[in-house]
Amino acid sequence: MDVENIKFRHEMPVQLRFSDVDQFGHVNNSVYFSLFDMCKTKYIFDALGQDSFHNIGVVVAHINADFIAPIFYQDEVVIQTAVQHIGNKSFTLYQRVINPKTQELKCVCQTVMVTYDLKNNKSIEIEHAFKVRLAELEQNPDLLKTD
Amino acid sequence: MDVENIKFRHEMPVQLRFSDVDQFGHVNNSVYFSLFDMCKTKYIFDALGQDSFHNIGVVVAHINADFIAPIFYQDEVVIQTAVQHIGNKSFTLYQRVINPKTQELKCVCQTVMVTYDLKNNKSIEIEHAFKVRLAELEQNPDLLKTD
Amino acid sequence: MDVENIKFRHEMPVQLRFSDVDQFGHVNNSVYFSLFDMCKTKYIFDALGQDSFHNIGVVVAHINADFIAPIFYQDEVVIQTAVQHIGNKSFTLYQRVINPKTQELKCVCQTVMVTYDLKNNKSIEIEHAFKVRLAELEQNPDLLKTD
Amino acid sequence: MDVENIKFRHEMPVQLRFSDVDQFGHVNNSVYFSLFDMCKTKYIFDALGQDSFHNIGVVVAHINADFIAPIFYQDEVVIQTAVQHIGNKSFTLYQRVINPKTQELKCVCQTVMVTYDLKNNKSIEIEHAFKVRLAELEQNPDLLKTD
Repeated sequence: MDVENIKFRHEMPVQLRFSDVDQFGHVNNSVYFSLFDMCKTKYIFDALGQDSFHNIGVVVAHINADFIAPIFYQDEVVIQTAVQHIGNKSFTLYQRVINPKTQELKCVCQTVMVTYDLKNNKSIEIEHAFKVRLAELEQNPDLLKTD
Repeated sequence: MDVENIKFRHEMPVQLRFSDVDQFGHVNNSVYFSLFDMCKTKYIFDALGQDSFHNIGVVVAHINADFIAPIFYQDEVVIQTAVQHIGNKSFTLYQRVINPKTQELKCVCQTVMVTYDLKNNKSIEIEHAFKVRLAELEQNPDLLKTD
Repeated sequence: MDVENIKFRHEMPVQLRFSDVDQFGHVNNSVYFSLFDMCKTKYIFDALGQDSFHNIGVVVAHINADFIAPIFYQDEVVIQTAVQHIGNKSFTLYQRVINPKTQELKCVCQTVMVTYDLKNNKSIEIEHAFKVRLAELEQNPDLLKTD
Repeated sequence: MDVENIKFRHEMPVQLRFSDVDQFGHVNNSVYFSLFDMCKTKYIFDALGQDSFHNIGVVVAHINADFIAPIFYQDEVVIQTAVQHIGNKSFTLYQRVINPKTQELKCVCQTVMVTYDLKNNKSIEIEHAFKVRLAELEQNPDLLKTD
């Protein structure tokens, strides 16, 4: 799905910590990924329920991020998360950091997530029920179409 | 420059911390960017000298990373850094995390860095002397050619 | 003031991140101090207003913490902050992490904070107006009494 | 054991990261505890061998730290670790951050560590073999004396 057409149905305010801010007075770029992670985890919990992580892991395979404007400590920010694509062993999340008051866009990030067998250290196929749940959350049955 | 042709002349062992490792037993993806940052900072210090950051800031504009194999707490890892491209207001670093003993590739990351006027919050042109210094470190005068 | 008599008038929910949790499944002890810091910063902002940190810094001189029960990723937690003592160049904050639903006490921490001249790297006396503001917030004029 | 009499036999250089440094230009206080943790983990690995953490966990029960001088990004620092006391279910580590060139003392920290059954979430007695190993590393048989 083209990112222009994404409707964000999952949004989460994020709490900034004093230690997130670097010498430049900006939230350090590494912190963004902690924040994206937190929101991805929440998204997957909302999709799968609390015990999701006991059976399988979902790990990051690829990250593509644009830092558009710095985040300052006093900034109010939310992270929006949507599923952009579902494949066999991976799915792609599209996330944005915005200031909810000004709608200023701070950062966009695409993450390819892989379902992963933590015991045997290898990727595994995504269960169909998980795919269906993601498509339901996104209100987008097209996400289930095979490429 | 194609990444296949990059010769890495800057390499730095990185020290992992217990707190870097997440519930999955993997170094968390956000930590990689702290490590890349540390090595970028060292690279720029080596290029510009210690007082580089007092005058200008160099901030991250874009990140593109592939996570190829998980890093475990006991892993020995080094990060290699090279300049891949130099533009007018930005330059691109190419970095790899490898296990120096096994040569196993853990992660590759491209980062577009922008020179930045921290007072006025806007990007500024890279000084020519800085470009020359980067090309010297890379032993690659082609980096100075205009696109 | 004895800690038993402290009334907490400042309370803040804290947002946990996936990366806060270590291999043991516990929020790592170093993260607690980021969280305490965030709440201290908010407390001081509430006391002094937004521009407090431009003039002076408030740095940590001493920390004394008891970890009573582990924090798990799914735990809901708040941090309560109170001023326990005000001296000439330092003041002491008393903080607690609790689960607001169960009232389970997770951690208590005493922090001695020093007002600090960031330019000259030395501690400085706390302004009287700041002391008064702290005592007002705590509704405790006894905090202004000289030891 | 009085801290004045402690001989440090375990010392480890620590690598600072750009993201460790806060808006004040100081290594943030929460980072110290990540660094102390890293050195504690290394100490325990050196004492017990690599598989130590598979059987039991060692968790932090109490921290008492004095921040004596700020750490700047360019500072070279090492952390020294020693066992100060061994009890039945806990042992106390004493750690110092120093600049190895100037011998400037940056921070001292006492940590009470508890051996912990991670499955049942409760503290357990320290195995005698572990106590003996700690006393050997410290070359201090008095550590084995019952209080």
